[in-house]
Amino acid sequence: MILALTGGTGGAKLVKGLAAEIDPADLTIICNTADDAIFHGLHVSPDIDTIVYTLAGLNDEEKGWGMAGESFVGLEQLRRLGEEVWFKLGDKDLATHILRTDLLRQGLTLSEATRRIRSALGIQSEILPMSDDRIESRIVTANGEISFQEYFVRERWAPEVKRVFFAGVDQSKPASRVLQAIANAAGIVICPSNPITSIGPILAVPGIRQALREARGKIVAVSPIIARAAISGPAHTLMGTHGLEPSVRGVAKAYADLLDVLIVGREDQSLQSEIEKLGVKPVSADIRMNSLADKRRLARQVLALLSK
Amino acid sequence: MILALTGGTGGAKLVKGLAAEIDPADLTIICNTADDAIFHGLHVSPDIDTIVYTLAGLNDEEKGWGMAGESFVGLEQLRRLGEEVWFKLGDKDLATHILRTDLLRQGLTLSEATRRIRSALGIQSEILPMSDDRIESRIVTANGEISFQEYFVRERWAPEVKRVFFAGVDQSKPASRVLQAIANAAGIVICPSNPITSIGPILAVPGIRQALREARGKIVAVSPIIARAAISGPAHTLMGTHGLEPSVRGVAKAYADLLDVLIVGREDQSLQSEIEKLGVKPVSADIRMNSLADKRRLARQVLALLSK
Repeated sequence: MILALTGGTGGAKLVKGLAAEIDPADLTIICNTADDAIFHGLHVSPDIDTIVYTLAGLNDEEKGWGMAGESFVGLEQLRRLGEEVWFKLGDKDLATHILRTDLLRQGLTLSEATRRIRSALGIQSEILPMSDDRIESRIVTANGEISFQEYFVRERWAPEVKRVFFAGVDQSKPASRVLQAIANAAGIVICPSNPITSIGPILAVPGIRQALREARGKIVAVSPIIARAAISGPAHTLMGTHGLEPSVRGVAKAYADLLDVLIVGREDQSLQSEIEKLGVKPVSADIRMNSLADKRRLARQVLALLSK
Repeated sequence: MILALTGGTGGAKLVKGLAAEIDPADLTIICNTADDAIFHGLHVSPDIDTIVYTLAGLNDEEKGWGMAGESFVGLEQLRRLGEEVWFKLGDKDLATHILRTDLLRQGLTLSEATRRIRSALGIQSEILPMSDDRIESRIVTANGEISFQEYFVRERWAPEVKRVFFAGVDQSKPASRVLQAIANAAGIVICPSNPITSIGPILAVPGIRQALREARGKIVAVSPIIARAAISGPAHTLMGTHGLEPSVRGVAKAYADLLDVLIVGREDQSLQSEIEKLGVKPVSADIRMNSLADKRRLARQVLALLSK
């Protein structure tokens, strides 16, 4: 079994490639849930949903979030009813959140709700939230503390960030099959997701980082940073708040205690010796994933490194 | 202030006429909530919604339920996710239920949630649920007990009904402004709604029937039955279960203790003396409401009788 740790957009591209290159039933995914938020009383799990929609072939490739061919009739009516609607929930997407919220209220865990949703959509890969407990990325800006979605979507990551912390993480436990999946994995991929707000919360759940250090499978990460800028999103601006250089060296440092190999872009070949100094083996590749062919090629490279 | 007691479809037509004939701010409506149901974890109040959509001019005139120009994208996705979707919730309609459910969960009463929704849509008439407590019409058939929506929508009122009862009604209280509205009304209209499952639950809430008996305003009802058949829905078949003849005489008997005038169809003129025997004044009129002109004409007749 191959295990992938991921956030949303960037990570989903590699997950798509992995699911195409191996039997999807042999792929397990651990998703960040610290971006989860309640909108209009509905529990939204953006990273889980991005992975679910991607593996079900329902995702909007162009926008990079949500489902393809979405309409926004319900959201427009919510606006008319006086609700703030800056988080764009489409009509199909709303169905996911309605069902998830209902299942959670019936007493199911987020893991169980996720299993029900991905199974209904015919996804064979196991998708595990990092935790069934509520953990929330909080972004401390000059103008006060906001949620990740407020920072990322509403404010379009414009505010200067002073600090990021994960509310609730110290009291949280890994979801039931997470530690087992880490221990049993033949190989582990850290996807090209934000090291602070996507992979960071996963590693911050008590027990997960230690389990990764002790994992028998090799651990390979793909850098979300090329030449000091994130491929998408605010990873590079957030890394500084955790004392990390916004570069592949910063990525290597974030994961150095558990990482075997870091795949970096060809643009960052000059930094390979810096990565080696951290005890991580650098490998350069073309890590931009636009087409399905790109995703599959990079997935093959990752799988080859894991089996070495 | 004119007060209307109503269920959904038939009653909404008269309510529409009343709101067009008087200042809508002078109209208060008490709605049945015993048809309320939870679908996919969302609180649906079909009769309140029909009144809200009708007064906001958003209702689907042809179908007689829901909103005009609806799409069903979210519902189709819920079906795909494995949910039973026999209750047709449109995308715009879902927004109402999402907001209501959120407001109720925040601790608002159904009255407060309804006020928020109708105000957002610019409705000036006050719309009160009969009660803020959960009351549920239960339909006992040969094959067991089902909810009203299961009977009415899923089973298309095909099963033979042995008994109807209102679960929770004995412990319920009228919503906060209901008794005051009854006491203060210059005139009260019982709309042409099902006497058993629409008006019946309103009258069964402890205190409401007595308040109507003591009301200073005249009480005029419009029959939902013409020539032994309901204008729409299963009123005539349900009346028998409460020992009421499925006719205008049965309607008069259902309300005899509190009613001044019953408006019946011209087809039922022959039964007028029977109605008089019950102490109710019969008035015949054309009570079918197809066009807005029909609704306004009947509303004018009702208003004239109330002010006599």
